[in-house]
Amino acid sequence: MDDTIGRVFEIPPRSGVAFTLDRGRMLTVIDPQGEQVADLLAFVRDDTAEVISSGRTLDYASRLFLTTGDPIYSNRSNVLLRIVADTVGRHDFLLTPCSAETFRIIYGDEHPHRGCFGNLAAALSAYGITPDQIPIAFNVFMNVRVDGETGALAVAPPLSRAGDHASFLAETDLVIGLTACSALQSNNFSFKPIHYRID
Amino acid sequence: MDDTIGRVFEIPPRSGVAFTLDRGRMLTVIDPQGEQVADLLAFVRDDTAEVISSGRTLDYASRLFLTTGDPIYSNRSNVLLRIVADTVGRHDFLLTPCSAETFRIIYGDEHPHRGCFGNLAAALSAYGITPDQIPIAFNVFMNVRVDGETGALAVAPPLSRAGDHASFLAETDLVIGLTACSALQSNNFSFKPIHYRID
Repeated sequence: MDDTIGRVFEIPPRSGVAFTLDRGRMLTVIDPQGEQVADLLAFVRDDTAEVISSGRTLDYASRLFLTTGDPIYSNRSNVLLRIVADTVGRHDFLLTPCSAETFRIIYGDEHPHRGCFGNLAAALSAYGITPDQIPIAFNVFMNVRVDGETGALAVAPPLSRAGDHASFLAETDLVIGLTACSALQSNNFSFKPIHYRID
Repeated sequence: MDDTIGRVFEIPPRSGVAFTLDRGRMLTVIDPQGEQVADLLAFVRDDTAEVISSGRTLDYASRLFLTTGDPIYSNRSNVLLRIVADTVGRHDFLLTPCSAETFRIIYGDEHPHRGCFGNLAAALSAYGITPDQIPIAFNVFMNVRVDGETGALAVAPPLSRAGDHASFLAETDLVIGLTACSALQSNNFSFKPIHYRID
């Protein structure tokens, strides 16, 4: 019996994990305190060159904002995950995981944190996945405001409150990368944990 | 002397090419008839795992729509191209190149064209670049309308008129992929050529 099933795991603030998710299993990402973002990646376990693709997914959905019922497609146009529950309804699929370069370029940090990108790269290396394979993440609970006329993007506090969650059904055997996001702006300027559960 | 400099090349309708672009050279993409899209990719020539990234670029610009003066960043946060001229001001950096799957999923084609994706994959294979390395393209002249409230995306006719162009300065030695787009919707339902020039 797999003792990871149904158990709640905590990802500490500004860190990340990687784990396998079998086809038919459901991953639930929970915001335990509210206003915290989790960057989510999914790779096909048998061939990690296949990975979630924002460009394919948004094109097929003809919509920037995804929620319950929406599939998340790979770069090869296969459905890897399907959103099956969502108590928030606002996530981002435009921006890459925050990284040392993000903090250097956007925040002007001289000694930047490695960010979600560095956390994902470190966690995914156990599965033979290299940093260059990390695409735009599905940024759970991230609230990016879009001005349709000017195209201006603004990162606003997440709409998630304590206990809010989103659930993703695996359509094939996957390797998952998941973080408690490290960027101040994304999380209303307070770093918090993320919880997750596999059912 | 390089006889490709200053010469206008034609990309026939629904096809694509790949070529090298040296650091300091300027690529000008021209719409000879108007209302035609060109999918543009750029890879670092010495290490083609480094490629343009919409996620990095849009994040650093804090804007969906790019134009003169804007840099196009790589997945490693280096500037690969800089937009130095633009007579249209409306391009897309959200959607992946159209592909056989695009035509199957969105248009319901039973025997789909290989699309810009297939054209780019074929042309880039001469440089050792594989289909899985093809990211979201910078879709020159593509006019994707965005509803900031609902997130709805709608592909509208390009704003380009005959002779309109956009120019890109290479910040490092690059391999370029470029197409005359194969998707009906993107080009106001008429397939046309694209011209380009290197100066």
